[in-house]
Amino acid sequence: MEEVKLLGWWVSPFSRRVELALKLKDLAHKSQLLLEYNPVHKKVPVLVHNGKTMAESLVILEYIDETWPNNPILPRNPYDKAMARFWAQFIEEKCNGGLWKIMWCKDEEERGKLVEEASQCFITLEGELKGNKFFGGEEIGMVDIAANFIGYWLGVVQEVSGMELVTRDKFPVLCKWMDEFVEHSVVKETLPPRDELHAEFEARLGAPSWKY
Amino acid sequence: MEEVKLLGWWVSPFSRRVELALKLKDLAHKSQLLLEYNPVHKKVPVLVHNGKTMAESLVILEYIDETWPNNPILPRNPYDKAMARFWAQFIEEKCNGGLWKIMWCKDEEERGKLVEEASQCFITLEGELKGNKFFGGEEIGMVDIAANFIGYWLGVVQEVSGMELVTRDKFPVLCKWMDEFVEHSVVKETLPPRDELHAEFEARLGAPSWKY
Repeated sequence: MEEVKLLGWWVSPFSRRVELALKLKDLAHKSQLLLEYNPVHKKVPVLVHNGKTMAESLVILEYIDETWPNNPILPRNPYDKAMARFWAQFIEEKCNGGLWKIMWCKDEEERGKLVEEASQCFITLEGELKGNKFFGGEEIGMVDIAANFIGYWLGVVQEVSGMELVTRDKFPVLCKWMDEFVEHSVVKETLPPRDELHAEFEARLGAPSWKY
Repeated sequence: MEEVKLLGWWVSPFSRRVELALKLKDLAHKSQLLLEYNPVHKKVPVLVHNGKTMAESLVILEYIDETWPNNPILPRNPYDKAMARFWAQFIEEKCNGGLWKIMWCKDEEERGKLVEEASQCFITLEGELKGNKFFGGEEIGMVDIAANFIGYWLGVVQEVSGMELVTRDKFPVLCKWMDEFVEHSVVKETLPPRDELHAEFEARLGAPSWKY
């Protein structure tokens, strides 16, 4: 029986992406699956499959999809696949990257600019769902998994910080997607408890210089 | 006959990545290939294949490799493929991203820190060639293509700016790879003229506040 081990950190959306992909592939039943949520590892998530080690969540997601082809994460058609990769990358770099900068920016003026930039990216993303339940269509796929921080973590970050970037009035489509995302049966299993996440972010981001 | 059109900018290593991949696939002979190097396009490179449009050079490289399987750019084995993607991403984010920040940083102290950080990434990359001619082994592949800025453009940037980050004494293996890279017959065809590139960078980076 093959051995699959995920080294992660319970707070990390990147670790949870990989956990979600492994669960979508139903690997808990098909392999000896070990999830080890331990923050001592310097670089997480790390996937170890039959002794072979790899890092970077989006790279790992591609590996999982190629290695276990059931319940596809990426479309099979090269053009649709390119689109999924494009949007996963857009979310990673522009949306998550933008939010990350905002979270740690201590200069108010600079933060205002960053919020404006990030808002533009979210407007673009809002237009991408086009009436679909998920970015992947009827089923969740690569783009949804890549967007997990937006789907769940962002709400906690906004609550802790008072940041009002993605709200129901400004982004109704995206907020509807968030509802669908957190209600998905497999996603649910891979979300850290909201109160613990709240406490963690409060401890990390709670300095008054940062609050809105 | 299929139509392949690349919209790019002659200075851009990202555009040249796609041109290189198309030429490695020998598409000039197999399709109606049009390279349009015109800086008016807001976002380049853009590949248009039979009317379908896509952006982001690394995403386009994957598409090219899936659509035209001859002369593989990525390894076929999922694990080796994951490694190639990891290193391409590492080069993009850490090496190129680091160099980009250095290029535009006007604060001397801050720049010193950025150079130190980038050097660490280049030390990691130096160790990755492991006696191979190319990152792809005997043939150039995804990682080499992703590293094209390091292979050619960086030398010009260092010359213009006086930056001495990647030198023969500090990075002999990487500099040996640069020699191999620019001597590769197909790579050669996709490199902008050195004197024109020099003039372009001098015009853009030549402000005294930036020079080393």
